[in-house]
Amino acid sequence: LGAGDAPVFPRIAIVGLGLIGGSIALAARQRWPGVRLVAVDEKPILTEALSRQVVDASAETVAGLPEVDLVVLAAPVRKNIEILSQLADTLHGPAVITDVGGTKQAIQEAAAHLPSPLTFVGGHPLGGGAHAGLAFARADLFDQRPWIFTPFTDQPASAVEQLSRFAAALGALPVTISAAEHDRIMAFLSHLPQLTASALMETVGQAVGAHGLGLAGGGLLDTTRLASSPASVWRDVCATNADAIGTALDRLIEQLGKLRADLERGQSVEEVFSSASKWRAELIKK
Amino acid sequence: LGAGDAPVFPRIAIVGLGLIGGSIALAARQRWPGVRLVAVDEKPILTEALSRQVVDASAETVAGLPEVDLVVLAAPVRKNIEILSQLADTLHGPAVITDVGGTKQAIQEAAAHLPSPLTFVGGHPLGGGAHAGLAFARADLFDQRPWIFTPFTDQPASAVEQLSRFAAALGALPVTISAAEHDRIMAFLSHLPQLTASALMETVGQAVGAHGLGLAGGGLLDTTRLASSPASVWRDVCATNADAIGTALDRLIEQLGKLRADLERGQSVEEVFSSASKWRAELIKK
Repeated sequence: LGAGDAPVFPRIAIVGLGLIGGSIALAARQRWPGVRLVAVDEKPILTEALSRQVVDASAETVAGLPEVDLVVLAAPVRKNIEILSQLADTLHGPAVITDVGGTKQAIQEAAAHLPSPLTFVGGHPLGGGAHAGLAFARADLFDQRPWIFTPFTDQPASAVEQLSRFAAALGALPVTISAAEHDRIMAFLSHLPQLTASALMETVGQAVGAHGLGLAGGGLLDTTRLASSPASVWRDVCATNADAIGTALDRLIEQLGKLRADLERGQSVEEVFSSASKWRAELIKK
Repeated sequence: LGAGDAPVFPRIAIVGLGLIGGSIALAARQRWPGVRLVAVDEKPILTEALSRQVVDASAETVAGLPEVDLVVLAAPVRKNIEILSQLADTLHGPAVITDVGGTKQAIQEAAAHLPSPLTFVGGHPLGGGAHAGLAFARADLFDQRPWIFTPFTDQPASAVEQLSRFAAALGALPVTISAAEHDRIMAFLSHLPQLTASALMETVGQAVGAHGLGLAGGGLLDTTRLASSPASVWRDVCATNADAIGTALDRLIEQLGKLRADLERGQSVEEVFSSASKWRAELIKK
Protein backbone atom coordinates (compact mmCIF):
# COMPACT_ATOMS: atom_id res chain seq x y z
CA LEU A 1 0.00 0.00 0.00
CA GLY A 2 1.37 3.42 -0.93
CA ALA A 3 0.63 6.88 0.45
CA GLY A 4 -2.12 7.41 -2.15
CA ASP A 5 -4.66 4.82 -0.93
CA ALA A 6 -7.78 5.72 1.05
CA PRO A 7 -7.27 6.24 4.80
CA VAL A 8 -8.65 3.53 7.11
CA PHE A 9 -10.25 6.37 9.10
CA PRO A 10 -10.77 9.54 6.99
CA ARG A 11 -11.55 11.77 10.01
CA ILE A 12 -9.53 11.34 13.21
CA ALA A 13 -9.73 13.12 16.57
CA ILE A 14 -6.73 12.90 18.88
CA VAL A 15 -7.29 13.82 22.51
CA GLY A 16 -3.92 14.74 24.03
CA LEU A 17 -1.10 15.83 21.73
CA GLY A 18 1.90 14.57 23.66
CA LEU A 19 4.66 12.33 22.34
CA ILE A 20 2.28 9.51 21.38
CA GLY A 21 -0.75 11.55 20.24
CA GLY A 22 1.47 13.94 18.31
CA SER A 23 3.36 11.07 16.66
CA ILE A 24 0.07 9.42 15.60
CA ALA A 25 -0.95 12.72 13.98
CA LEU A 26 2.37 13.07 12.17
CA ALA A 27 2.41 9.42 11.05
CA ALA A 28 -1.21 9.49 9.83
CA ARG A 29 -0.61 12.73 7.87
CA GLN A 30 2.54 11.28 6.29
CA ARG A 31 0.70 8.07 5.36
CA TRP A 32 -2.50 9.76 4.08
CA PRO A 33 -1.90 13.43 3.18
CA GLY A 34 -5.68 13.94 2.82
CA VAL A 35 -6.65 12.64 6.28
CA ARG A 36 -8.60 15.12 8.41
CA LEU A 37 -7.04 15.55 11.87
CA VAL A 38 -8.59 17.37 14.82
CA ALA A 39 -6.93 17.67 18.22
CA VAL A 40 -8.18 18.29 21.76
CA ASP A 41 -5.65 19.65 24.24
CA GLU A 42 -4.77 22.80 26.12
CA LYS A 43 -4.65 26.08 24.23
CA PRO A 44 -0.82 26.56 23.99
CA ILE A 45 -0.35 23.03 22.64
CA LEU A 46 -3.14 23.48 20.08
CA THR A 47 -1.58 26.76 18.94
CA GLU A 48 1.77 25.00 18.43
CA ALA A 49 0.11 22.05 16.65
CA LEU A 50 -1.89 24.26 14.29
CA SER A 51 1.06 26.50 13.45
CA ARG A 52 3.21 23.42 12.69
CA GLN A 53 0.26 21.97 10.70
CA VAL A 54 0.36 18.80 12.80
CA VAL A 55 -3.47 18.91 12.78
CA ASP A 56 -6.13 20.69 10.69
CA ALA A 57 -8.47 21.79 13.45
CA SER A 58 -8.70 21.93 17.22
CA ALA A 59 -11.07 21.99 20.16
CA GLU A 60 -10.40 22.76 23.79
CA THR A 61 -12.89 20.16 25.03
CA VAL A 62 -14.40 17.02 23.53
CA ALA A 63 -17.78 18.80 23.50
CA GLY A 64 -16.37 20.87 20.64
CA LEU A 65 -15.47 17.86 18.46
CA PRO A 66 -17.08 17.36 15.05
CA GLU A 67 -18.21 13.87 13.92
CA VAL A 68 -15.15 11.68 13.24
CA ASP A 69 -14.45 8.06 12.31
CA LEU A 70 -11.79 7.45 14.96
CA VAL A 71 -11.07 8.97 18.36
CA VAL A 72 -7.63 8.32 19.86
CA LEU A 73 -7.49 8.99 23.60
CA ALA A 74 -3.87 9.92 24.31
CA ALA A 75 -4.07 11.67 27.69
CA PRO A 76 -3.10 10.01 31.03
CA VAL A 77 -5.21 6.87 31.73
CA ARG A 78 -7.73 8.32 34.19
CA LYS A 79 -8.20 11.42 32.03
CA ASN A 80 -8.93 9.10 29.09
CA ILE A 81 -11.54 7.29 31.19
CA GLU A 82 -13.15 10.60 32.12
CA ILE A 83 -13.22 11.74 28.49
CA LEU A 84 -14.62 8.41 27.31
CA SER A 85 -17.75 9.00 29.39
CA GLN A 86 -18.24 12.38 27.69
CA LEU A 87 -17.91 11.11 24.12
CA ALA A 88 -21.37 9.54 23.98
CA ASP A 89 -22.86 13.02 24.42
CA THR A 90 -20.81 14.46 21.59
CA LEU A 91 -20.48 11.80 18.90
CA HIS A 92 -23.41 10.10 17.25
CA GLY A 93 -21.21 7.75 15.26
CA PRO A 94 -20.64 5.23 13.99
CA ALA A 95 -17.12 5.79 15.34
CA VAL A 96 -14.28 3.68 16.68
CA ILE A 97 -12.62 4.83 19.89
CA THR A 98 -9.22 3.61 21.01
CA ASP A 99 -6.67 4.77 23.57
CA VAL A 100 -2.91 4.55 23.96
CA GLY A 101 -2.68 4.20 27.75
CA GLY A 102 -0.24 1.98 29.62
CA THR A 103 -2.99 -0.01 31.38
CA LYS A 104 -6.03 -1.58 29.74
CA GLN A 105 -8.39 -3.20 32.26
CA ALA A 106 -9.57 0.02 33.92
CA ILE A 107 -10.52 1.79 30.69
CA GLN A 108 -12.13 -1.38 29.27
CA GLU A 109 -14.35 -1.60 32.36
CA ALA A 110 -15.38 2.01 31.79
CA ALA A 111 -15.97 1.32 28.09
CA ALA A 112 -18.19 -1.72 28.65
CA HIS A 113 -21.30 0.44 28.77
CA LEU A 114 -20.52 2.72 25.83
CA PRO A 115 -23.68 3.09 23.70
CA SER A 116 -23.56 1.86 20.11
CA PRO A 117 -22.77 2.92 17.45
CA LEU A 118 -19.58 3.87 19.34
CA THR A 119 -17.11 0.99 19.50
CA PHE A 120 -14.18 0.96 21.95
CA VAL A 121 -11.04 -1.14 21.52
CA GLY A 122 -8.20 -0.58 23.97
CA GLY A 123 -4.76 0.00 22.45
CA HIS A 124 -1.16 0.47 23.52
CA PRO A 125 1.54 1.38 21.00
CA LEU A 126 4.95 0.44 22.38
CA GLY A 127 6.80 3.32 20.79
CA GLY A 128 7.78 5.92 23.30
CA GLY A 129 11.03 7.60 24.06
CA ALA A 130 13.03 9.17 26.82
CA HIS A 131 11.37 12.56 26.26
CA ALA A 132 7.69 13.41 26.53
CA GLY A 133 5.71 16.08 24.68
CA LEU A 134 4.69 17.20 21.20
CA ALA A 135 8.17 18.68 20.60
CA PHE A 136 9.59 15.12 20.50
CA ALA A 137 6.79 13.58 18.37
CA ARG A 138 7.95 11.88 15.15
CA ALA A 139 6.19 10.15 12.25
CA ASP A 140 8.43 7.07 12.61
CA LEU A 141 7.90 6.54 16.36
CA PHE A 142 5.95 3.31 15.80
CA ASP A 143 8.16 1.82 13.07
CA GLN A 144 8.54 -1.92 13.60
CA ARG A 145 7.30 -1.59 17.19
CA PRO A 146 4.44 -3.68 18.60
CA TRP A 147 1.06 -1.92 18.88
CA ILE A 148 -1.10 -3.95 21.24
CA PHE A 149 -4.90 -4.11 21.01
CA THR A 150 -6.99 -5.63 23.80
CA PRO A 151 -10.50 -6.29 22.42
CA PHE A 152 -13.40 -7.53 24.54
CA THR A 153 -13.96 -11.27 24.09
CA ASP A 154 -17.43 -10.75 22.59
CA GLN A 155 -16.40 -7.91 20.32
CA PRO A 156 -17.21 -7.91 16.55
CA ALA A 157 -13.92 -8.24 14.67
CA SER A 158 -14.37 -5.28 12.31
CA ALA A 159 -13.19 -2.48 14.63
CA VAL A 160 -10.16 -4.51 15.73
CA GLU A 161 -9.39 -5.33 12.12
CA GLN A 162 -9.66 -1.65 11.11
CA LEU A 163 -7.39 -0.56 13.99
CA SER A 164 -4.85 -3.25 13.12
CA ARG A 165 -4.74 -1.98 9.52
CA PHE A 166 -4.41 1.58 10.85
CA ALA A 167 -1.49 0.63 13.16
CA ALA A 168 0.23 -1.36 10.40
CA ALA A 169 -0.14 1.57 7.98
CA LEU A 170 1.66 3.74 10.57
CA GLY A 171 4.56 1.26 10.53
CA ALA A 172 3.70 -0.71 13.68
CA LEU A 173 3.28 -4.44 14.26
CA PRO A 174 -0.30 -4.95 15.56
CA VAL A 175 -0.68 -7.60 18.30
CA THR A 176 -3.91 -8.72 20.02
CA ILE A 177 -3.97 -9.96 23.64
CA SER A 178 -6.46 -9.72 26.51
CA ALA A 179 -6.54 -6.63 28.73
CA ALA A 180 -5.75 -8.75 31.80
CA GLU A 181 -2.72 -10.34 30.13
CA HIS A 182 -1.58 -6.92 28.90
CA ASP A 183 -1.69 -5.44 32.38
CA ARG A 184 0.04 -8.40 33.99
CA ILE A 185 2.90 -8.47 31.48
CA MET A 186 3.32 -4.68 31.28
CA ALA A 187 3.61 -4.52 35.08
CA PHE A 188 6.94 -6.31 34.55
CA LEU A 189 8.05 -5.09 31.11
CA SER A 190 7.19 -1.42 31.50
CA HIS A 191 5.82 -0.34 34.88
CA LEU A 192 8.44 -2.07 37.06
CA PRO A 193 11.45 -0.70 35.09
CA GLN A 194 9.92 2.78 35.33
CA LEU A 195 9.36 2.62 39.10
CA THR A 196 12.81 1.08 39.56
CA ALA A 197 14.56 3.79 37.58
CA SER A 198 12.82 6.55 39.55
CA ALA A 199 13.39 4.89 42.93
CA LEU A 200 17.07 4.29 42.05
CA MET A 201 17.63 7.88 40.93
CA GLU A 202 15.95 9.19 44.09
CA THR A 203 18.01 6.86 46.32
CA VAL A 204 21.30 7.78 44.67
CA GLY A 205 20.55 11.51 44.51
CA GLN A 206 19.60 11.64 48.18
CA ALA A 207 22.73 9.71 49.20
CA VAL A 208 25.43 11.47 47.20
CA GLY A 209 23.94 14.89 46.39
CA ALA A 210 24.39 16.96 43.25
CA HIS A 211 28.16 17.22 43.78
CA GLY A 212 28.57 13.43 44.14
CA LEU A 213 26.70 12.83 40.88
CA GLY A 214 29.73 14.30 39.10
CA LEU A 215 31.55 11.00 39.70
CA ALA A 216 28.79 8.88 38.11
CA GLY A 217 29.56 6.65 35.15
CA GLY A 218 27.54 5.65 32.12
CA GLY A 219 25.93 2.80 34.06
CA LEU A 220 23.92 5.12 36.31
CA LEU A 221 22.96 7.24 33.29
CA ASP A 222 21.55 4.21 31.44
CA THR A 223 19.84 2.70 34.44
CA THR A 224 18.04 5.93 35.36
CA ARG A 225 17.14 7.14 31.86
CA LEU A 226 13.41 6.59 32.56
CA ALA A 227 13.56 8.72 35.70
CA SER A 228 12.70 11.86 33.74
CA SER A 229 9.24 10.47 32.88
CA PRO A 230 6.27 12.67 33.87
CA ALA A 231 4.68 11.81 37.26
CA SER A 232 1.15 12.53 36.00
CA VAL A 233 1.21 9.70 33.45
CA TRP A 234 2.65 7.23 35.97
CA ARG A 235 0.31 8.08 38.83
CA ASP A 236 -2.54 6.95 36.59
CA VAL A 237 -0.73 3.80 35.46
CA CYS A 238 0.03 2.84 39.08
CA ALA A 239 -3.51 3.57 40.29
CA THR A 240 -5.08 1.47 37.51
CA ASN A 241 -2.71 -1.51 37.72
CA ALA A 242 -1.86 -1.52 41.42
CA ASP A 243 -2.29 -5.27 42.00
CA ALA A 244 -0.01 -6.41 39.20
CA ILE A 245 2.55 -3.68 39.89
CA GLY A 246 2.49 -4.58 43.59
CA THR A 247 3.32 -8.17 42.71
CA ALA A 248 6.13 -7.06 40.39
CA LEU A 249 7.60 -4.78 43.08
CA ASP A 250 7.42 -7.61 45.62
CA ARG A 251 9.39 -9.90 43.32
CA LEU A 252 12.07 -7.27 42.68
CA ILE A 253 12.35 -6.47 46.39
CA GLU A 254 12.75 -10.21 47.00
CA GLN A 255 15.62 -10.44 44.46
CA LEU A 256 17.32 -7.40 45.97
CA GLY A 257 16.89 -8.89 49.44
CA LYS A 258 18.44 -12.15 48.25
CA LEU A 259 21.50 -10.30 46.95
CA ARG A 260 21.68 -8.22 50.12
CA ALA A 261 21.66 -11.27 52.40
CA ASP A 262 24.66 -12.81 50.69
CA LEU A 263 26.98 -9.99 49.59
CA GLU A 264 30.09 -11.36 51.32
CA ARG A 265 29.77 -14.98 50.23
CA GLY A 266 28.44 -13.97 46.81
CA GLN A 267 26.59 -17.16 45.88
CA SER A 268 23.39 -15.19 45.14
CA VAL A 269 25.36 -12.56 43.23
CA GLU A 270 26.81 -15.34 41.08
CA GLU A 271 23.40 -16.95 40.49
CA VAL A 272 21.43 -13.77 39.82
CA PHE A 273 24.10 -12.24 37.58
CA SER A 274 24.55 -15.40 35.52
CA SER A 275 20.82 -15.82 35.02
CA ALA A 276 20.19 -12.11 34.41
CA SER A 277 22.88 -11.93 31.73
CA LYS A 278 21.14 -14.80 29.89
CA TRP A 279 17.78 -13.00 30.06
CA ARG A 280 19.51 -9.85 28.85
CA ALA A 281 20.89 -11.76 25.85
CA GLU A 282 17.32 -12.96 25.09
CA LEU A 283 16.05 -9.40 25.36
CA ILE A 284 18.64 -8.06 22.90
CA LYS A 285 17.75 -10.79 20.37
CA LYS A 286 14.18 -9.44 20.09
CA LEU B 1 52.50 17.88 26.09
CA GLY B 2 52.71 16.03 22.78
CA ALA B 3 53.27 12.36 21.99
CA GLY B 4 57.04 12.92 21.86
CA ASP B 5 57.71 13.67 25.55
CA ALA B 6 59.19 11.14 27.96
CA PRO B 7 56.71 8.67 29.47
CA VAL B 8 55.84 9.15 33.17
CA PHE B 9 56.55 5.42 33.59
CA PRO B 10 58.89 4.05 30.85
CA ARG B 11 58.21 0.37 31.74
CA ILE B 12 54.66 -0.72 32.64
CA ALA B 13 53.25 -4.10 33.62
CA ILE B 14 49.49 -4.63 33.30
CA VAL B 15 48.02 -7.59 35.16
CA GLY B 16 44.70 -8.47 33.51
CA LEU B 17 44.07 -7.38 29.92
CA GLY B 18 40.31 -6.86 30.00
CA LEU B 19 38.44 -3.75 28.91
CA ILE B 20 40.26 -1.48 31.39
CA GLY B 21 43.71 -3.09 31.36
CA GLY B 22 43.64 -3.36 27.56
CA SER B 23 42.50 0.25 27.18
CA ILE B 24 45.33 1.45 29.46
CA ALA B 25 47.81 -0.43 27.24
CA LEU B 26 46.33 1.08 24.05
CA ALA B 27 46.15 4.59 25.50
CA ALA B 28 49.72 4.47 26.89
CA ARG B 29 51.10 3.19 23.57
CA GLN B 30 49.27 5.91 21.64
CA ARG B 31 50.53 8.58 24.06
CA TRP B 32 54.13 7.31 24.22
CA PRO B 33 55.02 5.08 21.25
CA GLY B 34 58.28 4.09 22.95
CA VAL B 35 56.75 2.90 26.24
CA ARG B 36 57.58 -0.71 27.17
CA LEU B 37 54.42 -2.72 27.98
CA VAL B 38 54.32 -6.19 29.50
CA ALA B 39 51.10 -8.04 30.28
CA VAL B 40 50.13 -10.84 32.66
CA ASP B 41 47.00 -12.81 31.80
CA GLU B 42 45.90 -16.19 30.53
CA LYS B 43 47.64 -17.64 27.48
CA PRO B 44 44.90 -17.06 24.82
CA ILE B 45 44.53 -13.42 25.82
CA LEU B 46 48.29 -12.89 25.76
CA THR B 47 48.46 -14.46 22.30
CA GLU B 48 45.78 -12.07 21.06
CA ALA B 49 47.45 -9.07 22.73
CA LEU B 50 50.88 -9.88 21.29
CA SER B 51 49.55 -10.51 17.79
CA ARG B 52 47.66 -7.20 17.88
CA GLN B 53 50.80 -5.53 19.33
CA VAL B 54 48.80 -4.22 22.28
CA VAL B 55 51.83 -5.14 24.45
CA ASP B 56 55.51 -5.88 23.79
CA ALA B 57 55.97 -8.86 26.10
CA SER B 58 53.98 -11.20 28.28
CA ALA B 59 54.13 -13.44 31.32
CA GLU B 60 51.66 -16.02 32.55
CA THR B 61 52.32 -15.21 36.22
CA VAL B 62 53.68 -12.20 38.08
CA ALA B 63 56.73 -14.30 39.00
CA GLY B 64 57.75 -13.97 35.35
CA LEU B 65 57.67 -10.16 35.33
CA PRO B 66 60.82 -8.13 34.62
CA GLU B 67 61.61 -4.99 36.65
CA VAL B 68 59.13 -2.20 35.74
CA ASP B 69 58.33 1.35 36.90
CA LEU B 70 54.56 0.85 37.21
CA VAL B 71 52.34 -2.17 37.82
CA VAL B 72 48.64 -1.78 37.04
CA LEU B 73 46.48 -4.45 38.69
CA ALA B 74 43.43 -4.83 36.44
CA ALA B 75 41.99 -8.21 37.46
CA PRO B 76 38.93 -8.61 39.74
CA VAL B 77 39.47 -7.02 43.18
CA ARG B 78 40.32 -10.14 45.21
CA LYS B 79 42.64 -11.41 42.48
CA ASN B 80 44.41 -8.04 42.58
CA ILE B 81 44.82 -8.40 46.35
CA GLU B 82 46.28 -11.88 45.92
CA ILE B 83 48.70 -10.69 43.23
CA LEU B 84 49.73 -7.68 45.30
CA SER B 85 51.11 -10.01 47.96
CA GLN B 86 53.24 -11.80 45.35
CA LEU B 87 54.78 -8.65 43.87
CA ALA B 88 57.22 -8.08 46.72
CA ASP B 89 58.92 -11.39 45.86
CA THR B 90 59.27 -10.44 42.18
CA LEU B 91 60.00 -6.72 42.01
CA HIS B 92 62.88 -5.05 43.79
CA GLY B 93 61.80 -1.58 42.72
CA PRO B 94 61.54 1.26 43.11
CA ALA B 95 58.14 0.79 41.47
CA VAL B 96 54.68 2.29 41.81
CA ILE B 97 51.75 -0.13 42.00
CA THR B 98 48.17 0.90 41.35
CA ASP B 99 44.94 -0.95 40.62
CA VAL B 100 41.72 -0.21 38.76
CA GLY B 101 39.25 -2.08 40.99
CA GLY B 102 35.77 -0.91 41.90
CA THR B 103 36.45 -0.96 45.65
CA LYS B 104 39.42 0.58 47.41
CA GLN B 105 39.44 -0.11 51.18
CA ALA B 106 40.12 -3.85 50.94
CA ILE B 107 43.13 -3.56 48.65
CA GLN B 108 44.52 -0.61 50.62
CA GLU B 109 44.39 -2.69 53.80
CA ALA B 110 46.34 -5.42 51.99
CA ALA B 111 48.80 -2.85 50.62
CA ALA B 112 49.55 -1.25 54.01
CA HIS B 113 52.41 -3.67 54.65
CA LEU B 114 54.00 -3.60 51.21
CA PRO B 115 57.79 -3.34 51.66
CA SER B 116 59.53 -0.24 50.26
CA PRO B 117 60.71 0.62 47.66
CA LEU B 118 57.31 -0.54 46.31
CA THR B 119 54.63 2.15 46.61
CA PHE B 120 50.93 1.38 46.31
CA VAL B 121 48.24 3.96 45.43
CA GLY B 122 44.70 2.70 44.85
CA GLY B 123 43.05 3.86 41.63
CA HIS B 124 39.70 3.63 39.86
CA PRO B 125 39.29 4.97 36.32
CA LEU B 126 35.60 5.62 35.66
CA GLY B 127 35.72 4.70 32.01
CA GLY B 128 34.06 1.42 31.33
CA GLY B 129 31.44 0.33 28.92
CA ALA B 130 28.61 -2.09 28.41
CA HIS B 131 30.97 -4.77 27.08
CA ALA B 132 33.85 -6.40 28.90
CA GLY B 133 37.06 -7.85 27.47
CA LEU B 134 40.12 -6.92 25.44
CA ALA B 135 38.08 -6.96 22.21
CA PHE B 136 36.26 -3.81 23.37
CA ALA B 137 39.37 -1.98 24.68
CA ARG B 138 39.98 1.45 23.15
CA ALA B 139 42.67 4.12 23.56
CA ASP B 140 40.04 6.82 24.21
CA LEU B 141 38.14 4.97 26.97
CA PHE B 142 39.29 7.42 29.65
CA ASP B 143 38.83 10.65 27.66
CA GLN B 144 37.40 13.36 29.92
CA ARG B 145 36.34 10.72 32.48
CA PRO B 146 37.30 10.94 36.18
CA TRP B 147 40.17 8.67 37.31
CA ILE B 148 40.02 8.43 41.08
CA PHE B 149 43.10 7.89 43.27
CA THR B 150 42.78 7.01 46.95
CA PRO B 151 46.18 7.58 48.60
CA PHE B 152 46.95 6.73 52.23
CA THR B 153 46.83 9.80 54.45
CA ASP B 154 50.54 9.50 55.33
CA GLN B 155 51.68 8.81 51.78
CA PRO B 156 54.50 10.81 50.12
CA ALA B 157 52.97 12.90 47.33
CA SER B 158 55.35 11.83 44.56
CA ALA B 159 53.67 8.54 43.57
CA VAL B 160 50.22 10.16 43.58
CA GLU B 161 51.56 13.06 41.57
CA GLN B 162 53.15 10.68 39.02
CA LEU B 163 49.94 8.65 38.69
CA SER B 164 47.87 11.80 38.27
CA ARG B 165 50.16 12.92 35.44
CA PHE B 166 49.89 9.42 33.92
CA ALA B 167 46.07 9.46 34.07
CA ALA B 168 45.89 12.99 32.66
CA ALA B 169 48.23 12.01 29.81
CA LEU B 170 45.80 9.20 28.96
CA GLY B 171 43.00 11.78 28.67
CA ALA B 172 41.40 11.31 32.10
CA LEU B 173 40.59 13.82 34.83
CA PRO B 174 42.50 12.71 37.97
CA VAL B 175 40.63 13.12 41.28
CA THR B 176 41.89 12.30 44.80
CA ILE B 177 39.56 11.14 47.61
CA SER B 178 39.89 8.77 50.56
CA ALA B 179 39.34 5.04 50.08
CA ALA B 180 36.46 5.08 52.58
CA GLU B 181 34.71 7.95 50.78
CA HIS B 182 35.29 6.22 47.43
CA ASP B 183 33.67 3.00 48.62
CA ARG B 184 30.72 4.76 50.23
CA ILE B 185 29.94 6.89 47.19
CA MET B 186 30.55 4.11 44.63
CA ALA B 187 28.15 1.84 46.53
CA PHE B 188 25.46 4.27 45.33
CA LEU B 189 26.85 5.54 42.00
CA SER B 190 28.08 2.26 40.61
CA HIS B 191 27.44 -0.85 42.71
CA LEU B 192 23.74 -0.20 43.42
CA PRO B 193 22.81 0.52 39.75
CA GLN B 194 24.62 -2.69 38.77
CA LEU B 195 22.83 -4.87 41.33
CA THR B 196 19.53 -3.19 40.49
CA ALA B 197 19.90 -3.78 36.76
CA SER B 198 20.71 -7.47 37.30
CA ALA B 199 17.93 -8.00 39.86
CA LEU B 200 15.43 -6.24 37.58
CA MET B 201 16.41 -8.28 34.52
CA GLU B 202 16.18 -11.51 36.53
CA THR B 203 12.76 -10.54 37.96
CA VAL B 204 11.33 -9.58 34.56
CA GLY B 205 12.80 -12.57 32.72
CA GLN B 206 11.45 -15.01 35.32
CA ALA B 207 7.99 -13.43 35.19
CA VAL B 208 7.41 -13.07 31.45
CA GLY B 209 9.79 -15.61 29.88
CA ALA B 210 11.72 -15.31 26.62
CA HIS B 211 8.51 -14.99 24.58
CA GLY B 212 7.14 -12.15 26.73
CA LEU B 213 10.39 -10.19 26.33
CA GLY B 214 9.37 -9.65 22.69
CA LEU B 215 6.90 -7.01 23.90
CA ALA B 216 9.52 -5.04 25.84
CA GLY B 217 10.16 -1.40 24.99
CA GLY B 218 13.30 0.70 25.02
CA GLY B 219 12.83 1.47 28.72
CA LEU B 220 13.58 -2.08 29.82
CA LEU B 221 16.55 -2.20 27.43
CA ASP B 222 18.09 0.94 28.94
CA THR B 223 17.36 0.02 32.54
CA THR B 224 18.93 -3.44 32.24
CA ARG B 225 21.93 -2.56 30.07
CA LEU B 226 24.33 -3.32 32.95
CA ALA B 227 22.84 -6.79 33.43
CA SER B 228 25.33 -8.31 30.99
CA SER B 229 28.25 -7.45 33.29
CA PRO B 230 30.47 -10.38 34.33
CA ALA B 231 29.56 -12.00 37.67
CA SER B 232 33.23 -12.61 38.60
CA VAL B 233 34.05 -8.89 38.77
CA TRP B 234 30.91 -8.10 40.77
CA ARG B 235 31.27 -10.92 43.28
CA ASP B 236 34.56 -9.35 44.32
CA VAL B 237 33.12 -5.83 44.46
CA CYS B 238 30.21 -7.02 46.62
CA ALA B 239 32.44 -9.04 48.94
CA THR B 240 34.84 -6.14 49.51
CA ASN B 241 32.21 -3.40 49.97
CA ALA B 242 29.38 -5.37 51.59
CA ASP B 243 28.57 -2.85 54.35
CA ALA B 244 28.17 0.16 52.09
CA ILE B 245 26.34 -1.83 49.39
CA GLY B 246 24.04 -3.29 52.04
CA THR B 247 23.14 0.23 53.16
CA ALA B 248 22.52 1.30 49.57
CA LEU B 249 20.29 -1.73 48.90
CA ASP B 250 18.35 -1.03 52.11
CA ARG B 251 17.66 2.53 50.98
CA LEU B 252 16.49 1.41 47.53
CA ILE B 253 14.28 -1.30 49.01
CA GLU B 254 12.83 1.36 51.30
CA GLN B 255 11.99 3.63 48.32
CA LEU B 256 10.44 0.73 46.41
CA GLY B 257 8.42 -0.21 49.50
CA LYS B 258 7.21 3.37 49.83
CA LEU B 259 5.97 3.34 46.23
CA ARG B 260 4.43 -0.08 46.72
CA ALA B 261 2.46 0.98 49.82
CA ASP B 262 0.77 3.82 47.99
CA LEU B 263 0.19 2.76 44.37
CA GLU B 264 -3.54 3.50 44.32
CA ARG B 265 -3.43 6.90 45.99
CA GLY B 266 -0.19 7.81 44.25
CA GLN B 267 1.13 10.45 46.64
CA SER B 268 4.48 8.64 46.94
CA VAL B 269 4.62 8.11 43.18
CA GLU B 270 4.14 11.85 42.72
CA GLU B 271 6.81 12.72 45.31
CA VAL B 272 9.43 10.18 44.23
CA PHE B 273 8.97 10.84 40.49
CA SER B 274 9.13 14.63 40.90
CA SER B 275 12.26 14.46 43.03
CA ALA B 276 13.90 11.76 40.89
CA SER B 277 13.41 13.75 37.69
CA LYS B 278 15.21 16.69 39.34
CA TRP B 279 18.14 14.45 40.34
CA ARG B 280 18.18 13.05 36.82
CA ALA B 281 18.42 16.59 35.41
CA GLU B 282 21.39 17.21 37.75
CA LEU B 283 23.00 13.97 36.59
CA ILE B 284 22.70 14.91 32.91
CA LYS B 285 24.29 18.31 33.57
CA LYS B 286 27.54 16.67 34.71
